[in-house]
Amino acid sequence: MAALDRILDDIDRDLDTSLERLFAFLRIPSISTDPAYAAECRKAAEWIKGDLAALGFDASLRETGGHPVVLAHSPKPGAPHVLFYGHYDVQPVDPLHEWETKQPFEPRIVTLADGRKAISARGACDDKGQVMTFVEACRAFKAIDGELPVGVTLLIEGAEEDGSKFLPEWVAANREELKADLVLVCDTGMWDRDTPAITSSLRGLAYFEVTVTCADRDLHSGLFGGAAANPIRVLSRIIADLHDDHGRVTVPGFYDGVHETPEDVLAQWRGLNLTPESFLGTVGLNLPAGERDRMLIEQIQSRPTCDANGIIGGYTGEGTKTVIASKASAKISFRLVGDQDPEALDRNFRAFVQERIPADCSVDIVTHKGSRALALPHGMPALEAAKGALAEEWGRAPVTIGSGGSIPIVGDFKRTLGLDTLLVGFGLDDDRVHSPNEKYDLQSFHKGTRSWARILAALAK
Amino acid sequence: MAALDRILDDIDRDLDTSLERLFAFLRIPSISTDPAYAAECRKAAEWIKGDLAALGFDASLRETGGHPVVLAHSPKPGAPHVLFYGHYDVQPVDPLHEWETKQPFEPRIVTLADGRKAISARGACDDKGQVMTFVEACRAFKAIDGELPVGVTLLIEGAEEDGSKFLPEWVAANREELKADLVLVCDTGMWDRDTPAITSSLRGLAYFEVTVTCADRDLHSGLFGGAAANPIRVLSRIIADLHDDHGRVTVPGFYDGVHETPEDVLAQWRGLNLTPESFLGTVGLNLPAGERDRMLIEQIQSRPTCDANGIIGGYTGEGTKTVIASKASAKISFRLVGDQDPEALDRNFRAFVQERIPADCSVDIVTHKGSRALALPHGMPALEAAKGALAEEWGRAPVTIGSGGSIPIVGDFKRTLGLDTLLVGFGLDDDRVHSPNEKYDLQSFHKGTRSWARILAALAK
Repeated sequence: MAALDRILDDIDRDLDTSLERLFAFLRIPSISTDPAYAAECRKAAEWIKGDLAALGFDASLRETGGHPVVLAHSPKPGAPHVLFYGHYDVQPVDPLHEWETKQPFEPRIVTLADGRKAISARGACDDKGQVMTFVEACRAFKAIDGELPVGVTLLIEGAEEDGSKFLPEWVAANREELKADLVLVCDTGMWDRDTPAITSSLRGLAYFEVTVTCADRDLHSGLFGGAAANPIRVLSRIIADLHDDHGRVTVPGFYDGVHETPEDVLAQWRGLNLTPESFLGTVGLNLPAGERDRMLIEQIQSRPTCDANGIIGGYTGEGTKTVIASKASAKISFRLVGDQDPEALDRNFRAFVQERIPADCSVDIVTHKGSRALALPHGMPALEAAKGALAEEWGRAPVTIGSGGSIPIVGDFKRTLGLDTLLVGFGLDDDRVHSPNEKYDLQSFHKGTRSWARILAALAK
Repeated sequence: MAALDRILDDIDRDLDTSLERLFAFLRIPSISTDPAYAAECRKAAEWIKGDLAALGFDASLRETGGHPVVLAHSPKPGAPHVLFYGHYDVQPVDPLHEWETKQPFEPRIVTLADGRKAISARGACDDKGQVMTFVEACRAFKAIDGELPVGVTLLIEGAEEDGSKFLPEWVAANREELKADLVLVCDTGMWDRDTPAITSSLRGLAYFEVTVTCADRDLHSGLFGGAAANPIRVLSRIIADLHDDHGRVTVPGFYDGVHETPEDVLAQWRGLNLTPESFLGTVGLNLPAGERDRMLIEQIQSRPTCDANGIIGGYTGEGTKTVIASKASAKISFRLVGDQDPEALDRNFRAFVQERIPADCSVDIVTHKGSRALALPHGMPALEAAKGALAEEWGRAPVTIGSGGSIPIVGDFKRTLGLDTLLVGFGLDDDRVHSPNEKYDLQSFHKGTRSWARILAALAK
């Protein structure tokens, strides 16, 4: 029996116990954006550190300005060395009442309408489930061969869902210890449940919080209505103005640095025949809401976007209150592509908003860390090795796609460490990542683990 | 000593104990819009019923579909009979952290920056404090004369801040018991702290709750951003579209039934010289936000308005979440004047909103009870009597104003009981009615009580 087959068999045999390990990891509510869960984040860090130490990794917790980073080394002199990046933190769970079980942190196996089995829990896919596919692949090599085919360093952070605020400086400060030939990330998706994908480009992100203040207190609309500026009205106008009637973003200079997708890539995309029904239909929609003159696949992969992620102001309780609020605020984010500059957008967006604030009102704009878009070099050897490995596991060639999501730190790996990053993930469009009832297909977890075993073996050659 | 002077002296002597009674009333958190406070509302009803019974009124609690109504009679055969209307319920207190003492229901006397003394508590002005000015005036007559100068029925309801949903049918069902010559209401304001006012017109109210639903779940903006409709964006566009660049409301037919203010009234208003600084300056603003071509006083008194009273959607917690919400909702209300028809507005507003909903999204619109605007007959005798009484108490003639606020039930008193309503109140623009730190000037409470004594005496003639 070939060496790799013995590894794959071990992964199959070990599936149940690997699920038990993942469930233990998922039970820790490591919500990084809410300070109330700081202790739980550390607990999740300790858990993954302990699991890696048990596998023989030289594992430790490293402090940052925020949640700790888990670093684990398994060197192999003479062999290629990979740096695997993932995160142990998860998104908030609200609205809690929309979770089928009201317990997002009590993982369970569910059977989907079409008979698929899936792991249901916050973080099941993003990113605990995906991280464990790599860890379980490593476990199989250690169990069968007693060693890994390549040198491996794992960097598992705890603030990815909060913009990885402190990681860039930490990476810069620990440059030496992070030396490697290549970065591997498992935080992206498949093309569909049967077709693997390698993400060759990532959209950047610029995230703002805009708070408009009008009167210095809440007012009675009966007394002041008609005369006093209303921050909800001011903020709504700003959000409405952000797009024109063709779905284009109206912030001056927004499209500077956006490049047209090469014709050969567009041709490949047309061949995929992604329809509004097949993509939006899964979430109850069917009309692409982006730029009118772009294919749906362009809207979600190669074009920049703007979305209001949250808004609140005035009375939002039960019943009625005839109040004019003093303040209203919104979270507004932009997905960036090509060479769009987050700093330039920051300046232009602030000016765009300020222009729309009445002279007797004020606005406060908080910028959360922005990141540039990123594209991998075409035809890099590791990319070809991974393509072959994925083709063997899934029985069909992987699609090379651009991801709408943003993994800011990948940009720092390139700038700070000079490393390219191979993004291979097994998430599906219906995983409800960032939503109630997040899940991760059992097949994604199982074959994802097998895929990493094949990729690690291929990278050793 | 003249009879009335003895009454006024008694009111002066009794000020401290009358404050103790008001404080006991204010300590009951009777928030009518929040079902969690239903028991407290009933407690407030019991309290005022008990106080009136102690004064010799035939007082009782009457059930409605909602919070109970307090009804109290003190008949006087041969004399005119007045029906006094007020409400024992109060507005919600959020945001609680903006209250100087975190206890809106722990009343206390505060000294304002300019040395004025005031009663600070939720309901201090709206409407418990104002109701008690009338009750304390009655108490003085009972104490000195052993009887009231006119027949009096008090109708104190518990759902005014929730649109008085069940009161109209209750009034209709109890028509006989509510027979009177005139309705008195103490739920309005003075012109300024030294100038009393009689409200001769009331704006109507139409209040809607609009909920837009796009995808059937929250989405990850990285995966769906650019392609999926965003309910916050849809709702913002609707709110932005509600006004044109001249501050006019754009709902078709909105201004049907709006009449121009008579030139003589406009002349009187110009004479008042209400400036943006003097009115808006008190709340930190200085630019009238209403119709460009109207005087500030028209914007707040004679012109209809539209305001978003609340909005919520997506992620509103700390930090960032790259989500596209499934739903977003807003509370939107209109102040009506003249002969504007709430039913017509309901139809036109629904069509206005529906036109702006993408074909693959949906909207749910809830209409909270609407009311027409109301104007009192000019030169009605009771109006002249009240004017004289207020002039004597305050040393200057009262201003006859239109109120921006809405007291829907006044329309029912006219339609159902055929009664005109005299609106005399002692609130001030800086009372923060419906806002944190609501207060009622001690002078308003004291001289308000004396004013009612004078008005009751004048109505007896």
